[in-house]
Amino acid sequence: MNAHPGPVPDLSGLTLAELASLSGGADFWSTKAVGEVPSLVLTDGPHGVRRQAGATDHLGLAESLPATCFPPAVGLAQSWDPDLVRRVGAALGTEAGALGVDVLLGPGINIKRDPRGGRNFEYYSEDPFLTGVLGGAWVTGLQGTGVGASLKHFAANNAEHDRMRSSSNIDPRTLREIYLRAFQKVVRTSAPWTVMCSYNRINGVYASEDHWLLTTVLREEWGFDGVVVSDWGAVRERSASVPAGLDLEMPGDGGASDARLVAAVEDGSCSPEDVRTAASRVAALAAKAAHARGERASRESGTHEVAAQDAEAHHTLAREVAARCVVLLRNEGGLLPLAPGSSVAVIGGFAQNPRYQGGGSSHVNPTRLDVPLEEIRALAGEGTVTFSHGYTEGEDVDAGLREQAVRDAENADAAVVFLGLAEHQESEGFDRDHIELPAEQLDLLAAVVAAQPRTVVVLSHGGVLRLAPVAELAPAILDGALLGQAGGGAIADVLFGRVNPSGRLAETVPVRLQDTPAYLNFPGENSAVLYGEGLYVGYRWYDARETEVAFPFGHGLSYTSFAYSDLRLEQDGTGVTASLTVTNTGDRAGREVVQFYVSKPDSAVSRAPRELKGFAGVTLEPGQSERVSVLLAREDLAYWEVRVDRWVVEGGEYTVSAGASSRDLRAEAAVTVEGDELRLPVTLDSTLGEVMADPKAAAVLGEALSSSPLASGDSSALGMDMVRMMASIPLGRLASFGPVGREELEALIARINQEA
Amino acid sequence: MNAHPGPVPDLSGLTLAELASLSGGADFWSTKAVGEVPSLVLTDGPHGVRRQAGATDHLGLAESLPATCFPPAVGLAQSWDPDLVRRVGAALGTEAGALGVDVLLGPGINIKRDPRGGRNFEYYSEDPFLTGVLGGAWVTGLQGTGVGASLKHFAANNAEHDRMRSSSNIDPRTLREIYLRAFQKVVRTSAPWTVMCSYNRINGVYASEDHWLLTTVLREEWGFDGVVVSDWGAVRERSASVPAGLDLEMPGDGGASDARLVAAVEDGSCSPEDVRTAASRVAALAAKAAHARGERASRESGTHEVAAQDAEAHHTLAREVAARCVVLLRNEGGLLPLAPGSSVAVIGGFAQNPRYQGGGSSHVNPTRLDVPLEEIRALAGEGTVTFSHGYTEGEDVDAGLREQAVRDAENADAAVVFLGLAEHQESEGFDRDHIELPAEQLDLLAAVVAAQPRTVVVLSHGGVLRLAPVAELAPAILDGALLGQAGGGAIADVLFGRVNPSGRLAETVPVRLQDTPAYLNFPGENSAVLYGEGLYVGYRWYDARETEVAFPFGHGLSYTSFAYSDLRLEQDGTGVTASLTVTNTGDRAGREVVQFYVSKPDSAVSRAPRELKGFAGVTLEPGQSERVSVLLAREDLAYWEVRVDRWVVEGGEYTVSAGASSRDLRAEAAVTVEGDELRLPVTLDSTLGEVMADPKAAAVLGEALSSSPLASGDSSALGMDMVRMMASIPLGRLASFGPVGREELEALIARINQEA
Repeated sequence: MNAHPGPVPDLSGLTLAELASLSGGADFWSTKAVGEVPSLVLTDGPHGVRRQAGATDHLGLAESLPATCFPPAVGLAQSWDPDLVRRVGAALGTEAGALGVDVLLGPGINIKRDPRGGRNFEYYSEDPFLTGVLGGAWVTGLQGTGVGASLKHFAANNAEHDRMRSSSNIDPRTLREIYLRAFQKVVRTSAPWTVMCSYNRINGVYASEDHWLLTTVLREEWGFDGVVVSDWGAVRERSASVPAGLDLEMPGDGGASDARLVAAVEDGSCSPEDVRTAASRVAALAAKAAHARGERASRESGTHEVAAQDAEAHHTLAREVAARCVVLLRNEGGLLPLAPGSSVAVIGGFAQNPRYQGGGSSHVNPTRLDVPLEEIRALAGEGTVTFSHGYTEGEDVDAGLREQAVRDAENADAAVVFLGLAEHQESEGFDRDHIELPAEQLDLLAAVVAAQPRTVVVLSHGGVLRLAPVAELAPAILDGALLGQAGGGAIADVLFGRVNPSGRLAETVPVRLQDTPAYLNFPGENSAVLYGEGLYVGYRWYDARETEVAFPFGHGLSYTSFAYSDLRLEQDGTGVTASLTVTNTGDRAGREVVQFYVSKPDSAVSRAPRELKGFAGVTLEPGQSERVSVLLAREDLAYWEVRVDRWVVEGGEYTVSAGASSRDLRAEAAVTVEGDELRLPVTLDSTLGEVMADPKAAAVLGEALSSSPLASGDSSALGMDMVRMMASIPLGRLASFGPVGREELEALIARINQEA
Repeated sequence: MNAHPGPVPDLSGLTLAELASLSGGADFWSTKAVGEVPSLVLTDGPHGVRRQAGATDHLGLAESLPATCFPPAVGLAQSWDPDLVRRVGAALGTEAGALGVDVLLGPGINIKRDPRGGRNFEYYSEDPFLTGVLGGAWVTGLQGTGVGASLKHFAANNAEHDRMRSSSNIDPRTLREIYLRAFQKVVRTSAPWTVMCSYNRINGVYASEDHWLLTTVLREEWGFDGVVVSDWGAVRERSASVPAGLDLEMPGDGGASDARLVAAVEDGSCSPEDVRTAASRVAALAAKAAHARGERASRESGTHEVAAQDAEAHHTLAREVAARCVVLLRNEGGLLPLAPGSSVAVIGGFAQNPRYQGGGSSHVNPTRLDVPLEEIRALAGEGTVTFSHGYTEGEDVDAGLREQAVRDAENADAAVVFLGLAEHQESEGFDRDHIELPAEQLDLLAAVVAAQPRTVVVLSHGGVLRLAPVAELAPAILDGALLGQAGGGAIADVLFGRVNPSGRLAETVPVRLQDTPAYLNFPGENSAVLYGEGLYVGYRWYDARETEVAFPFGHGLSYTSFAYSDLRLEQDGTGVTASLTVTNTGDRAGREVVQFYVSKPDSAVSRAPRELKGFAGVTLEPGQSERVSVLLAREDLAYWEVRVDRWVVEGGEYTVSAGASSRDLRAEAAVTVEGDELRLPVTLDSTLGEVMADPKAAAVLGEALSSSPLASGDSSALGMDMVRMMASIPLGRLASFGPVGREELEALIARINQEA
């Protein structure tokens, strides 16, 4: 069900005060009912519905109603599975509807610029293509149930430090190609009902007051026709935001800001048309939401409680999803899966008290919670399962815990050690200042591995960790990131091979924090962050600098193996279709995620060595082959051309590599793509080199200058290449160096533009 | 002789056209004589006087009169010896005077941001302190002879690519602390007669049109009272430049631009006062120059020829200087110095045809040229010296050349292999795209070392090279960079131990180009370069990222050894005086350059792990000790505080390390420095965290909010640290979240500012 808009309320009878009041919330979570305009409810997401219980307080901090906690985006992205993400969106929509929620505040699709970002667990990836595909699937799934999404945080909100003031200072190409690109994709493919503007500034302008961002780009370029809502508290003064394109300030403040907006119209500092436009957009959204509620009511929902059968079905879905999100980072000697009946020493507090979501506004009150230890016991069959804490969660190391764990490990067939970060070590609201696991956990691991070489590590964390010390010790590592309320069952499924893991990293694991792209430019100071690494975020950086990583973007092993063959590329107006044959060469059914990376080695602009432009999952029985075909869309091949302020596809040869990760490229082919025309007129600021690069223009210029001293400049006395030096001289500056007058030059330029 | 200004010409009788004409050149190298205002001559430098022979052409390309070619800045800086640099400046002034030159266009003090920069050979260092000290010494030496300097290229001109349009996009702190800092030091310490504005733009504004740069900073903040001259061809339209603070457009264009300036005044687009101001500054400079010429004339100079005895004395000085600029990078097993009487196989074309300066406007026609091979023969005494080319300079590898070289090497006591870059491989006008030595040279070296383990490499090059392959092969390496016309003798002096080398690297030699700070942001595209590495230029980057380097900044060995002891620090109002005892612990006299690096580990702002803030050379006989004392000036300890737009010394503990290089730190001590007051008023944009950090303000705020729901926000349902999250909320935004009205907040802020 993609909600029909319903009749748009008539605002013609409303006073200025009433119109102004529509652009401000009624309270923390709802908008005002004014005239024909109904109220609507917005609520935190996105990996579950955080519908506040009871009366709203002033900070929205109260306990929330039970709802399914799906894997947060950090885990969900590791599925690399848009269809699965769409199903999660649909389940969330069903729960939101039941809980009386019209707009669920998600998905969060900011790019993970730095592993220290406090809110990275709410985001998908360091890559805008992967983010855009998954974010779009989530919106499609959710909105199909008649509940609106709120695409957030728009835009370039990549750190928590000083988040309500900090200016993300980004060059235009990077902003377009990295930080806005996923937003563009989701707006275009999935038409979210709302977009949430972020707290931060972009190049000095608050997102909530950025007309270029909220109107020129979002509405005029991308065609967004929904409501722009502020992040909670992101508006400084609504009369500065509404003219920029903001429609709804949240939360409500009891009317004071409504009154100030009216005053601003009255004193002429804000136009009444802008106030009316915002009001009409809020009204249209409210009407759409009311219409959808009506449709749901006819199916007996809106009970402010997730129906028991939904809760059950969604928990099952959450387990399926979580298992697909687990990444098998390492599996030396085929240690995993554990044989049924093995005796297992489970070690680590997270096995009993799982870390499964992140702290902050997205925190969900789960309907149930799978405990990994219990799920392991359930699947271990006749094998003995012991549990020992192994380490503390606090400051004091307890040697007794470690000794017990080592004894348990020694006496078992294998040890499964749960390591990770506790909730208080990472959360919305602050950035981490390191990416280390607690030393006590690593010491424990070393002791366990010394006693039991067959040791599996299971990781729980919201942000990337330095894993080199873990990988040096443990022969097998499962990266669970954050897996939601059914993660415990999912981990057990993967450990015992009930699920063959197929998750892939959505973020590079670096060798050291010092190697990361934004290391010295994060989180900024004095309310400014320079995005100095430019386009080179994530794997783009490590590839361009040829830097070793611990685990590359896209990495993830399987209990079976796959072979790639017969990569073919075909170009047409829609892009390049890449197809290849994938064969399961192992002895177990499994899913492979084939990744397509595109390179343009001779590009006229700076580019990453390769960029993800397509991927596909394929599930195969042992020995089975299947042809996989993916369109690498022409729009995804484009780069942002700053000289003309638009997307341009560069013509010429592209290389497409098919890989099992960004550094496990198994097939490569080349294709010639027809480029977009890019013709820049010659001006006084065009250089000699630019003019000479165009044969027609060069002919005109050469003829005109043949009698000038420039043509005979003998540079031997300078020991240099005069032609190369001259190439950088703008035409207009020729007048400074020789008797080529300004008028002559202007006539020459006119001739070049006409003839060439 | 610091030239007396002479009487300032009276401009009162000049017409607008005459005044306007004073701000444009007469021809390529001179200004106009107008009324009482005499003409003056400016000419390329800076490592020699390039006084054009005969009539000027339109590009200033003709052969120039003979003059001493001292080591270009890349070599000179390796002396780390301001006194020596001052003597070079004085010698240059004497020659300039003799050649009828009033202003010598140097020193070039741009920071070497990237090893690929085509003009790096004309600049001193990656470090602004070292650059500022040496540049200031050069100006002082030159101007003491009555010839003016032209401090260039002002500013942030760090690449050749698209150099006449490209915008150097730099954050304010980096601009101040790295790219403007040496300019500031030289202007303040040495009062150059002129400053040359650069071709490029800075943050979008052409340097030649940048009022902030040429007036606010240069004149108003730093007190510069001389003439701002354009780089040749850097002015687009003088009517846009003169109001910004440019005084003199060069070269002259025959009067067309003078006429356009008059028209601009007449149509009101340029003020007549600005034209008069520029004219009066040019007039004052011309008068000063004429006065200095008069003083020189009384000493029988101005003959348009360097006097024979000066040429002789300056060649001797050039050899002394060059020897001091040689860096002994590596000397395994004490291979160097060569014993007198050794037989030596000299290999490589640069031994016969030396590479000693760079291509472009600084190219000097030397009075003499020392050939290394001949100088080695002269010092080898009874030892046989053979010569073989070893490699070609072109594209085709000649195996015969290599075989001859290997045979020669086998038959000698030692081989001395000259490697480097040819003039056409690096020059003004273009940037390099790699930092490799030609593969043929490395192959030759490998073959020679295989035949003769006692192999010394002598390097000639303008820009940094990747030296890992050389260091893996050769037990001894002398880095000559570019040494000027007497470099051949200097190299021989060092090879045979007539001079004990004491040069130090002024630029880090990285392991790989991929490790360099600006690797992905150089040279920019579409006429823009993002200085994304920010403050972390050169060793600041490698230290902050803990990246291995091939040879660190400040590195340089000696034929003797030194010990450091008893480092003491004393603080007073002028800064920190660091003193320590240096002892020559070897068996040969030598000079040690002690470097003082300052750290502020707990700084409130982002800082490099250590920064050079002082250095001193000390020459010691074997066994001799001397106490070295250096003032680390308070102004050099300051950082640029963007919130108040001024230099601020942070209070607290600083660490001072004394080292033989930036990574050979041998003594460390701490000192407490009293900080400058930095008090920022509380505003609606101040965060709760900022207010709470001040105990007095916190008391006021705490009292006022104690009854607010904010104080009792229970965040347990969010699984997060509410205090940390709240810390980033600006006071003004509290109104959005709770019943704290805007008026209440404003009253509260007024109370805090008053009471705290």
